[in-house]
Amino acid sequence: MLLESLQKIVRKTPGAAGAILMGFDGIAVMQSLAPGCEDTDIESAAMEFSFRFIELRKAAQSLGMGDVTDITIKADKQALLCRVLSDEYFVAVLLTDLGHLGRGRWNLRAQSAELRAEL
Amino acid sequence: MLLESLQKIVRKTPGAAGAILMGFDGIAVMQSLAPGCEDTDIESAAMEFSFRFIELRKAAQSLGMGDVTDITIKADKQALLCRVLSDEYFVAVLLTDLGHLGRGRWNLRAQSAELRAEL
Repeated sequence: MLLESLQKIVRKTPGAAGAILMGFDGIAVMQSLAPGCEDTDIESAAMEFSFRFIELRKAAQSLGMGDVTDITIKADKQALLCRVLSDEYFVAVLLTDLGHLGRGRWNLRAQSAELRAEL
Repeated sequence: MLLESLQKIVRKTPGAAGAILMGFDGIAVMQSLAPGCEDTDIESAAMEFSFRFIELRKAAQSLGMGDVTDITIKADKQALLCRVLSDEYFVAVLLTDLGHLGRGRWNLRAQSAELRAEL
């Protein structure tokens, strides 16, 4: 079921190289890569950001912004969309086509409930 | 002109508490607050994140994602939308109504060229 949710995110998001479920400690639970993107190291990407996300969450809390739900980092070649599932886990999708950022975020949100239910 | 661009971002984005132009060193250049939001400490918020954004930019570069153009942090009470203007400066808008995130990002982008021209 976890894998199915990740696969759905990837399949429904044009330009998605993959999706990953990871702990904020940088340890991956499961991932799904798009066909043709089997070489994508989405684990390293998510891990690299996971520790920094903890800092962003702390900063938002301390500023009274509340609990962080989504973090989007858009660069000129790729974008990483992340959705916080719980205190310990997040799901991220790596986009190599920046035109479908909105769709990616929508699909992340749509699958969040299912992913959460499995944690 | 800088101030005018910031004012435009705030005026055209429903739910925006303010917009700020800041260096990645955390030093504010100029800000504009929405009517009724004069107490909003957008400078502290942007400053708190500025150093962390440098880390995110370095991470994205090292992962081959390219240069970071936008960072969005959505929390359950507020959201901070940031657009990188140059190696040294970014513009951020603080939203207290999360329903208009897309509009905020659109307006940030629309005003970027004008802001860049003034840097």
